Amino acid sequence: MSRPLPAVLAFDVFGTVVDWHGTIAREIDAIGLGISGAEFASEWRAGYAPAMDRVRSGELGWTRIDDLHRMILDDILERHGIEGLDEAARQHLNLVWHRLDPWPDTVAALERLRSRFTICTLSNGNLGLLANMAKHAGMRWDLILSAEVFRHYKPDPETYLGVCDVFAIEPARMMLVAAHRSDLRAAAACGCQTAFIERPLEFGPAVANDVRRDPAFDMHARDLADLADQFGCA
Amino acid sequence: MSRPLPAVLAFDVFGTVVDWHGTIAREIDAIGLGISGAEFASEWRAGYAPAMDRVRSGELGWTRIDDLHRMILDDILERHGIEGLDEAARQHLNLVWHRLDPWPDTVAALERLRSRFTICTLSNGNLGLLANMAKHAGMRWDLILSAEVFRHYKPDPETYLGVCDVFAIEPARMMLVAAHRSDLRAAAACGCQTAFIERPLEFGPAVANDVRRDPAFDMHARDLADLADQFGCA
Repeated sequence: MSRPLPAVLAFDVFGTVVDWHGTIAREIDAIGLGISGAEFASEWRAGYAPAMDRVRSGELGWTRIDDLHRMILDDILERHGIEGLDEAARQHLNLVWHRLDPWPDTVAALERLRSRFTICTLSNGNLGLLANMAKHAGMRWDLILSAEVFRHYKPDPETYLGVCDVFAIEPARMMLVAAHRSDLRAAAACGCQTAFIERPLEFGPAVANDVRRDPAFDMHARDLADLADQFGCA
Repeated sequence: MSRPLPAVLAFDVFGTVVDWHGTIAREIDAIGLGISGAEFASEWRAGYAPAMDRVRSGELGWTRIDDLHRMILDDILERHGIEGLDEAARQHLNLVWHRLDPWPDTVAALERLRSRFTICTLSNGNLGLLANMAKHAGMRWDLILSAEVFRHYKPDPETYLGVCDVFAIEPARMMLVAAHRSDLRAAAACGCQTAFIERPLEFGPAVANDVRRDPAFDMHARDLADLADQFGCA
């Protein structure tokens, strides 16, 4: 890398540090709703970008992911004719996003990276969700940042530049760490550094997720442990 | 206590969990500016409420504490005719607020309280300041919340109610933990629970700080270890 060492690593969360597909599939299969957990997880996630677009377009005012998740959940249940989940059960299920399990490498690698850099989240998840998830998973962030703080969802530039502003650093001193090319491209367009993380199983074992190296990004790592290795973290 | 057990403890920071007066006095005395560190610390802090009031009144737009601290610092240096601090030295000194030392009981007591409750900051300090301070002091918060998130300074109700909103809880399930009566009174007016912490040395050994028990508050503790004891935390 010819660019300066970053001061702050900002991590995408869903898919990059936690396994949303696996966690939700397991929880749905455990409840037994007559639909495969993998299919349910995929449908729930598929509703996410369109829901955020409704906020971005102004059709909806600022809405937290918790509430967007709930709208999508109710829609899936109705579409599949799934009954028998009362209000309390729906509320509990909706909070599965607060209980997502980290990838096996995540917790230890974050500790290594935290010894060298300031590490924070930059997620479209709301603050309460991210705080509960960090407590559940044992992930120790120096700071939890969210679209909720900036009142903009990624990939709006206000989010990446917002992280730089919070830490009073130039964009070149911030590195976004993510498993998603669109997120990384938007950060790079703001002048931030980028690290692509391979998460071949993000969408479950049945979906071939393209994790090929892309020269557009500053770093490419098999997982977060590999990223810590490449930075020479103890 | 007849009220429900709180779900979230929100902590005031300056004075309640960290010793701003002692840390700043020591740093100023170490630099040697020809003014007593204790006096300098007191003057710096004394400029704080009036500076926030300029934001609150609309005279200044939203301004971070880092920038308010810098305005007050420049004013103190000019008023005392202190020269010889160049721009880099002033910037470094201004960030002493990011390096404040915790009270001796703080770090261990927060760990105990964190095992039982969700613990967060609710400080007028900005997010970057609070994140750097937590890293410096080894304080582990479940979430760092700041006036910066709510775009309101304490004691505006938007701050206390903002914490409740982030965690989707009723005000009665949030407890503000603070060494300052005005902060606690404002939280109580929002329906939150309150814990007063004695910090007799907050303003330095030369100032008699009134730490008498006040029946207006739900709990009264000698320090954070005593608060953890009263909650029966292991």
